[in-house]
Amino acid sequence: MYLSDRGFEVAVADNFVRRLYDAELGVESLVPIATLHQRVRTWKNVTGREIGLFVGDLRDPEFVYRIIGEFRPQAVVHFAEQRSAPYSMIDRAHAVYTQVNNVVGTLNVIYAIAELDPDIHLVKLGSMGEYGTPNIDIEEGFIEIEHRGRKDVLPFPKQPGSFYHLSKVHDSHNIHFACKNFGLRSTDLNQGVVYGVETEQSVRHPDLATRLDYDAVFGTVLNRFCIQAVLGHPITVYGHGTQIRGFLDIRDTVRCIELAIANPPARGEYRVFNQFTEEFSINQLAELVSRTWPGPSTVEYVDNPRTEALSHYYHARHTKLVELGLVPHKLSETLIQSLFQVIERHRDRVNWEAIRPTVNWRRTRNPRASGAGFLEKV
Amino acid sequence: MYLSDRGFEVAVADNFVRRLYDAELGVESLVPIATLHQRVRTWKNVTGREIGLFVGDLRDPEFVYRIIGEFRPQAVVHFAEQRSAPYSMIDRAHAVYTQVNNVVGTLNVIYAIAELDPDIHLVKLGSMGEYGTPNIDIEEGFIEIEHRGRKDVLPFPKQPGSFYHLSKVHDSHNIHFACKNFGLRSTDLNQGVVYGVETEQSVRHPDLATRLDYDAVFGTVLNRFCIQAVLGHPITVYGHGTQIRGFLDIRDTVRCIELAIANPPARGEYRVFNQFTEEFSINQLAELVSRTWPGPSTVEYVDNPRTEALSHYYHARHTKLVELGLVPHKLSETLIQSLFQVIERHRDRVNWEAIRPTVNWRRTRNPRASGAGFLEKV
Repeated sequence: MYLSDRGFEVAVADNFVRRLYDAELGVESLVPIATLHQRVRTWKNVTGREIGLFVGDLRDPEFVYRIIGEFRPQAVVHFAEQRSAPYSMIDRAHAVYTQVNNVVGTLNVIYAIAELDPDIHLVKLGSMGEYGTPNIDIEEGFIEIEHRGRKDVLPFPKQPGSFYHLSKVHDSHNIHFACKNFGLRSTDLNQGVVYGVETEQSVRHPDLATRLDYDAVFGTVLNRFCIQAVLGHPITVYGHGTQIRGFLDIRDTVRCIELAIANPPARGEYRVFNQFTEEFSINQLAELVSRTWPGPSTVEYVDNPRTEALSHYYHARHTKLVELGLVPHKLSETLIQSLFQVIERHRDRVNWEAIRPTVNWRRTRNPRASGAGFLEKV
Repeated sequence: MYLSDRGFEVAVADNFVRRLYDAELGVESLVPIATLHQRVRTWKNVTGREIGLFVGDLRDPEFVYRIIGEFRPQAVVHFAEQRSAPYSMIDRAHAVYTQVNNVVGTLNVIYAIAELDPDIHLVKLGSMGEYGTPNIDIEEGFIEIEHRGRKDVLPFPKQPGSFYHLSKVHDSHNIHFACKNFGLRSTDLNQGVVYGVETEQSVRHPDLATRLDYDAVFGTVLNRFCIQAVLGHPITVYGHGTQIRGFLDIRDTVRCIELAIANPPARGEYRVFNQFTEEFSINQLAELVSRTWPGPSTVEYVDNPRTEALSHYYHARHTKLVELGLVPHKLSETLIQSLFQVIERHRDRVNWEAIRPTVNWRRTRNPRASGAGFLEKV
C-alpha cells in the first residue's frame, strides 16, 4: 500500500500460510484483517490505484517464474518467509518446514531473476537476529578483519539463535553467492524488532488494517507488552530482561523498502542494511509501557524459553539507511498511547492461553503449541 | 570398513542416490563397485566382522529415528550428502535438491540425536570449500577478531562458491546452534580434495573396492588428471591453474574419522577440524601427473566453468588432527603410479563425453549434464 501510494506499480503474491498458522495455533490477529482480495478492492476504491494479486507458493518454481515473467518488476520485495523464531522451534517438523520454505522460496526467486531478467533488484528481508550478540560492534553485513599481518573485508560472522534466524543466514549466503555468480543485485534488510501497527495507508479504511499479533509465537515484544498492559495481564519479561535488541517503527519499515528500491546496488553487488533505528533492553520497554499505561500494571519475570545471552554487549551500526534519507520515528509515549487505543477497541478478541510462552527452545517437542504432524501436510 | 577393521561395531545407512546420479549422468565409477549388500557379505567372509545395513533416506525422519534408536551408536559419521559442486550448479532443480537433501538430512539427524541420546557424537563431513579464498589465513572454524577496541572469538566468515558448498555452510551453522541449544557434541570435518582410491581394507577383495570417478561432475581433480594421462586425453586445467586448494590421501580421510571419534568434544561443544594435509596449485598437480606418467601427455587450459578467484592468497591452518595423532600420507609419485595401475585395468569403461566439463556455473540451465525435470521425481 505504501509503495502503491508513492506511485509505484505494485503486485502482491501470497499463499496465505500466515492465516493457516493462526488456525494451527488457535489465535487471530487482535485487529481483524480482511481477505487479501477485499483489501485490494478497498484500496482501489479509496485511492483509485490497482494492486495486482497473485495467489501461489514460492516453493513452486512455475509460480515464481510466472509472476516475475508476467509482471516484469523493477524490484522484488521478498518478505514471503516464515518469520517466527518460536514457530521454528516447536519441533523438528516446524524447523524443517521453516528452513525449506524460506531457503527454497529464495532459491526459486534467485533463479527466476537470473534467468528472466538479472537486472531486477532483489530486496530481501533479513534479520538483525542473524548476527546474534557478539562481543564486538556489529557492522552492516561486512567487516574488515586484520589477521596475522594480512587484511580482508569479509562477511560479518553470524551466530543466529533459532532455526528461523538460521534460515535467514542461509538465505544471506545464497543471495551473496548469486550476486557474484549470476551478476544479480540485491539488498539484504537486516531488520530489528518492529513495533506499531498503523501506517498512513492502513488507517484510511478498516479493511486496510494490518495484523497485530498478541500471542507468544508471532507477537513481537513491544506490541505484546502494550496488549498485556491493556488486558491487565502481567507484562511477561523473559529471563532478566537485560537482553538488548534493535527496534523500529512499522512506518520506518515501509520507508526503508522505498529507499532501497530508489537507490539500487550495481549489478553483481550484494549489500546489507541494518534496518533499525534505536536499541533498547527488554526491561526498558517493560518500564516504558508500564509508565505510559494509566492503570495499574505488573512486570513478571518468567523463565526464558529461548537460548540467548542474558548479559551481553550490544552495539550495531545502522547508518546506511539514514545516509539514504531515512528520518526515524523514534519510540515515544504518543506511539504507545495510540497502540493502547487500537488494542482497547479489540481487547475482546484475545485468547488468554496464547499469551504465555508455549515453545521452549531446549525441548525437541512442544505439543502445547501445535498438534503433532500438522505441517507434514502443508 | 576401516572402523570395522579397527574393532568398532559399525552399521551403514544408504539410499543409493549416488548410483542414481550415475544413471542420470550416463557414467559409472571407473572401478566397478559391488552392491552394498554384496560388499557387506564379502567383508564378513574376509574378516569375520559384521556391518549392519540400513536402507533408507535421511530426509525421512522415521528412518533416521529408527536407525539411531535401534543401533544406539556412540557416534554418527554423517557423510550422506550430495557432494558435488558441479552437480548442484546444473540448474535450479539440482540446486534446490542439493540444499534440501543436505540441510533436511542433517536437521533430522540433529533432532534424532537430541531426542534419543544427546550424548551421541555427531561427526559431520564439511568442506574446505566453505571458506572460499579470503585474503587472510584460514583458521579451523573460529577466528579471534579485534574490532574497534573490543575482542571476540567468532565463526570464521564463509564465502562458499557453489550451491553445494553453501549447503555445507548452512549445515555448519545449524549444527553449531544445535550444540549450544540442545547440548549436542559435534565435530565438523572441513575436508580438502581427496585423492587416491585404495585403502588397506578396500584392496582385500575386488568386491570391497570403492568408487573412482573420472567424470567432470563427480571426479576430483588429481584422480581425473591421472585418468586423463592414462587415456591419452589432454589434462584439463580450468582457467590458469593458479587456484590453490588443500588436499589429502583417501587413507588419511578414514584415519581422521577415527581420531575424531576417539577424542570426542564435550557436551555442548561444536569444533571444526580442517581435514587436509598439503596445499597445491592445480598447475602443480598437472605437472606432477604429467612428469610421473611414462608416456606422452599434454596439458590443456580450458575456460573455467566455475566462478572462482584465479590468483589468490591461500594459507589454511590444519594442526588439530595432527595434534591428535594424524601422520599424513604425503602426495608421492608412488601413489600416482599405483593410481595409474588401477586406472589401466579399467580404462575401457570410460565414457569419453563425460570427461570435459558440462556444467557452467554462470548458466542457469546446463541441459548437456542432465535431462530437464529429472530430479523433481527423486
